[in-house]
Amino acid sequence: MAKVYVSAVMDATLVQAWSLLRDFGALGNYHPFFRESFIEDGRPADQVGCVRNFKVRDGGGVIRERLLALSDDEHRCRYAIIEVDADWKNYVAEMHLLPVTEGGRERCFGEWWATWEVPADQEADAVERVSGTFRTFFACVDQTFGGQR
Amino acid sequence: MAKVYVSAVMDATLVQAWSLLRDFGALGNYHPFFRESFIEDGRPADQVGCVRNFKVRDGGGVIRERLLALSDDEHRCRYAIIEVDADWKNYVAEMHLLPVTEGGRERCFGEWWATWEVPADQEADAVERVSGTFRTFFACVDQTFGGQR
Amino acid sequence: MAKVYVSAVMDATLVQAWSLLRDFGALGNYHPFFRESFIEDGRPADQVGCVRNFKVRDGGGVIRERLLALSDDEHRCRYAIIEVDADWKNYVAEMHLLPVTEGGRERCFGEWWATWEVPADQEADAVERVSGTFRTFFACVDQTFGGQR
Amino acid sequence: MAKVYVSAVMDATLVQAWSLLRDFGALGNYHPFFRESFIEDGRPADQVGCVRNFKVRDGGGVIRERLLALSDDEHRCRYAIIEVDADWKNYVAEMHLLPVTEGGRERCFGEWWATWEVPADQEADAVERVSGTFRTFFACVDQTFGGQR
Repeated sequence: MAKVYVSAVMDATLVQAWSLLRDFGALGNYHPFFRESFIEDGRPADQVGCVRNFKVRDGGGVIRERLLALSDDEHRCRYAIIEVDADWKNYVAEMHLLPVTEGGRERCFGEWWATWEVPADQEADAVERVSGTFRTFFACVDQTFGGQR
Repeated sequence: MAKVYVSAVMDATLVQAWSLLRDFGALGNYHPFFRESFIEDGRPADQVGCVRNFKVRDGGGVIRERLLALSDDEHRCRYAIIEVDADWKNYVAEMHLLPVTEGGRERCFGEWWATWEVPADQEADAVERVSGTFRTFFACVDQTFGGQR
Repeated sequence: MAKVYVSAVMDATLVQAWSLLRDFGALGNYHPFFRESFIEDGRPADQVGCVRNFKVRDGGGVIRERLLALSDDEHRCRYAIIEVDADWKNYVAEMHLLPVTEGGRERCFGEWWATWEVPADQEADAVERVSGTFRTFFACVDQTFGGQR
Repeated sequence: MAKVYVSAVMDATLVQAWSLLRDFGALGNYHPFFRESFIEDGRPADQVGCVRNFKVRDGGGVIRERLLALSDDEHRCRYAIIEVDADWKNYVAEMHLLPVTEGGRERCFGEWWATWEVPADQEADAVERVSGTFRTFFACVDQTFGGQR
């Protein structure tokens, strides 16, 4: 069982960070690892059960992920991989944001975890890939909003 | 601050109970207290942020509630009242289902809570109204599925 | 990764079920699979971090489990195995009780889950052993309180 | 219903912050608002159900709080006021820590909330008092560990 936990403090308000990260189908527009993302069957990106479809840049394959849970009051988004270019099983991930009320200007704390099964000899690489993906999501929030304040 | 907590064991599987209760816009079709329910603006009933609009039977007013969170893996649905025929504020409710694995045939445990603010002299009636509503939702599951097994 | 989820409706109030199951060191007194349980180092059984030590009946080995979390308001108890007579790793379990408010007399719903790592050829037996243990805990509540009401 | 939510990023590791804040009876040793804290009846400070007793500095009264829940794996501590020098009811608070894995050296995010009932004309002062208390707890972590790294 592989596990990843990445957390960061972003130079953005909770509202700003949520506005970027809540949009389940948009990662191909801003995340440097991915491209050509869309929600399948023309469904809204905040419809629980919808599937996002996107490609890994530089020749990687297609990834399809289903939205399992979305919470606008707790700022949580949980999803599962249903197709990926790797020998992974039972992949579930959750992104969760919380406001930082102290410290001068408002910032946002984000945590992102995943658990899944992967062959033992591929686990270290898989963990690195997933933690890099999550770390970069948070960096994208910083890049998008950090200069605007 | 008024609080209600109602929980019941239903003679239905988790999948059956969830199939009825997950549909945020359908209560007017089966709950005896309500009628003419629909999701505003033609949105899907499982789109987080959507608003359900329905009427209280026998001359009651309109109620509008916004879907705050929906989870297909934890079987949770949380929502807030945004318009009601009463002097209520900050009403939030959550329905949550869990399977009962023991006891012969599979059944389903459901809990439903709400918290809100109501003038002190109206609190007892408000609590009775809300707890009756939740109790009846669970009874509807029993009536729909209890005879089919 | 092995997983177990057992849930039951007990013929006892929440207060009764919690009074039996909350006592982390007492399982050897009532659970038919175990004997000679005690909390190590003379610590109270509700001190978070304490270790319970008990033996499996009929020639089984010693099990030692550490209390990770205890909640008197949510009626939760979470613990980890630190020593067991099997090739298990990263075993964590949680017991959680909720009241059943509907249905005539008050009853109690309990859920008990565990996740852990076990060699693939032993997983089916391990799952059976753990689910039987949890099922029997709930049955002990029924036997202790079911006739008293 | 009064509500407070305070969150901060501390210049300490999760282990460091937890070591200070987990000790339910120690606040009189380091928090500038309080003095003479102890756990009643000689119980350990991590025994769920124990009561801490302490005085407000500069002529304030005695406060007594009961430990409702403690989690060493989720780093949570929840408690209720059972006696206070104010007209407050149903006060429950929770402290929760999470690690910040990104950003150079390890830091710790903490959130602390409370909800309670207070007469309307006293609510603003009560909210200020409680939020100041929580803010100062986090500042104490910074002062204790910030210079050591």
